[in-house]
Amino acid sequence: MNITVLGAGAWGTAFGKVLADAGNDVTMWAIEPEIVEGIRDRHCNEVRLPVVEQLPANMTATGDRAEAVRGAEIVVVAIAAQFARVALEPFNGLIPPNAIVVSLMKGIERNTNKRMDEVVCESLGLDASHFAAVSGPNLSKEIAQEQPAATVVACEDIDNAKKVARACTTNYFKAFVTTDVIGLEMCGSLKNVVALAVGMARGAGYGENTAAMIETRGLAELTALGEAAGANPKTFAGLAGVGDLIATCGSPLSRNYTFGANLGKGMSKDEATKASNGVAEGVPTTAAVVALGERYGVPTPLASAMNRVLEEGISCADMLAQLFGSDITVE
Amino acid sequence: MNITVLGAGAWGTAFGKVLADAGNDVTMWAIEPEIVEGIRDRHCNEVRLPVVEQLPANMTATGDRAEAVRGAEIVVVAIAAQFARVALEPFNGLIPPNAIVVSLMKGIERNTNKRMDEVVCESLGLDASHFAAVSGPNLSKEIAQEQPAATVVACEDIDNAKKVARACTTNYFKAFVTTDVIGLEMCGSLKNVVALAVGMARGAGYGENTAAMIETRGLAELTALGEAAGANPKTFAGLAGVGDLIATCGSPLSRNYTFGANLGKGMSKDEATKASNGVAEGVPTTAAVVALGERYGVPTPLASAMNRVLEEGISCADMLAQLFGSDITVE
Repeated sequence: MNITVLGAGAWGTAFGKVLADAGNDVTMWAIEPEIVEGIRDRHCNEVRLPVVEQLPANMTATGDRAEAVRGAEIVVVAIAAQFARVALEPFNGLIPPNAIVVSLMKGIERNTNKRMDEVVCESLGLDASHFAAVSGPNLSKEIAQEQPAATVVACEDIDNAKKVARACTTNYFKAFVTTDVIGLEMCGSLKNVVALAVGMARGAGYGENTAAMIETRGLAELTALGEAAGANPKTFAGLAGVGDLIATCGSPLSRNYTFGANLGKGMSKDEATKASNGVAEGVPTTAAVVALGERYGVPTPLASAMNRVLEEGISCADMLAQLFGSDITVE
Repeated sequence: MNITVLGAGAWGTAFGKVLADAGNDVTMWAIEPEIVEGIRDRHCNEVRLPVVEQLPANMTATGDRAEAVRGAEIVVVAIAAQFARVALEPFNGLIPPNAIVVSLMKGIERNTNKRMDEVVCESLGLDASHFAAVSGPNLSKEIAQEQPAATVVACEDIDNAKKVARACTTNYFKAFVTTDVIGLEMCGSLKNVVALAVGMARGAGYGENTAAMIETRGLAELTALGEAAGANPKTFAGLAGVGDLIATCGSPLSRNYTFGANLGKGMSKDEATKASNGVAEGVPTTAAVVALGERYGVPTPLASAMNRVLEEGISCADMLAQLFGSDITVE
């Protein structure tokens, strides 16, 4: 199958390799000439994915939009979430009408509060039945090293989900399918508030019990929000929900983790922002979760407590005390 | 309140400390005279919980069974699961009739395949309404250090669950309540097969993605089994399910983890048994999960694959391939 990947960051390149390893002819599109040249001429992406010395032979690259998507049956989008709309609009009209567009992106568009499925469909004029999202416990580096991993492909049209799943199945990568696009999108974007809180607990010196408690209660909070928004709660108990949360919170390299750890060590939001050269995704996500909770009338104890950390500078101990509450409650 | 704890191992002692910190008068019962003496005379348990230098003043100990449980409103049982029946039978008739008996034990009695709630009620002649189980992400050492943690108390009678929850609530320990005793017991005992598999993947050199995938798929398997056995699936998504699984799999010190890691490095079951001075709990649990799956007609891909590791010596890669399967499946 002819497959195009838009964006040659770490995850885009690693997923392109999975698709090539599965036997597809893969064309990467990137805006940076040196990345295009590296993939096309030397089969490597030293800038974004140095862990792979030799990308598959059936993987090439171009900087030309029309050439990139010509004849593609599947177009994968792996662009930073906040730039997706502006990057995709020039592809409107270029992508073959029957192609399935697959988003690897996680996040919520800041100004519009829209999910990536909405952003992609709007900017490409795409019908929802031809949109799929991929999400799961998928740290790029480990996938690039061909460590066994699984993911979830979501599409309203289950046959299209299966088509994408088949296209990315290798002996080290397994894809499950679902029709719950909203649930998958919410899992991927909202988990960052939990990652931020877990990082904070780690930074304050707490161990496995505290991290596991935050992850579990955070998951319950996101599941309740998802249900109120029309998502399937089972999605949150699956690979894209609890699975991604475990992998994200288990990896101390992520920006949310580091940002949270700095808060846990006693830094203010401004100090942590300086220390990390910018705000972590979990910061705007915290506000987004609180707003979603108010909109749907769902309590959000973790996000609300994290919001007080970010807005009022309360300590990790006080954040956890607020999360605990004082009543005996049914779980 | 007067509370007795039977068994002064690491978790029994740490939970006794929680109860004393919550303001109760706590009497520990232990069979070892030096442990009794240490707790009673010097307020420490150097043998089992050296991390605590000074246990609370309202915590004492005795080696006398009748004295231990006299006037107790709550009796906590923290004895190794396989010895619970023989250790509890002498207490039958001694425990005050209205006392709530709380089990901290996790496991399935080998010869009978019975859960701890069944073992405790049978050996003490106890009505199920007076039995409670406590389970959650509760590594003893971290609780002893007063790191923030949460747990779940299960009792058929929700008022008794709340009574136990109130008795163990401190500023660092929070208890949620449920009536799903079967679900809580299954979570605590069956998770070991997942811990064994995660240990194996770690031993084989795999990272966060593989561990998160095994934990998530394992959780789905245990949830389906629990549902078939009459448990509430929400228990598996909560602190005693996914929470305990995250804490257990995140801590590389457990016996199941180490045993699994040795299997992942290529040792046979016999070699791993020698290296760990005995079989890990996850080994008989694997057989128990496969048997439960057959009994309830529920597929158990992870336990079945782990069973082939233990019985036929297949590799970690083959175990994961079997877990993956070859079809595109709905999650």
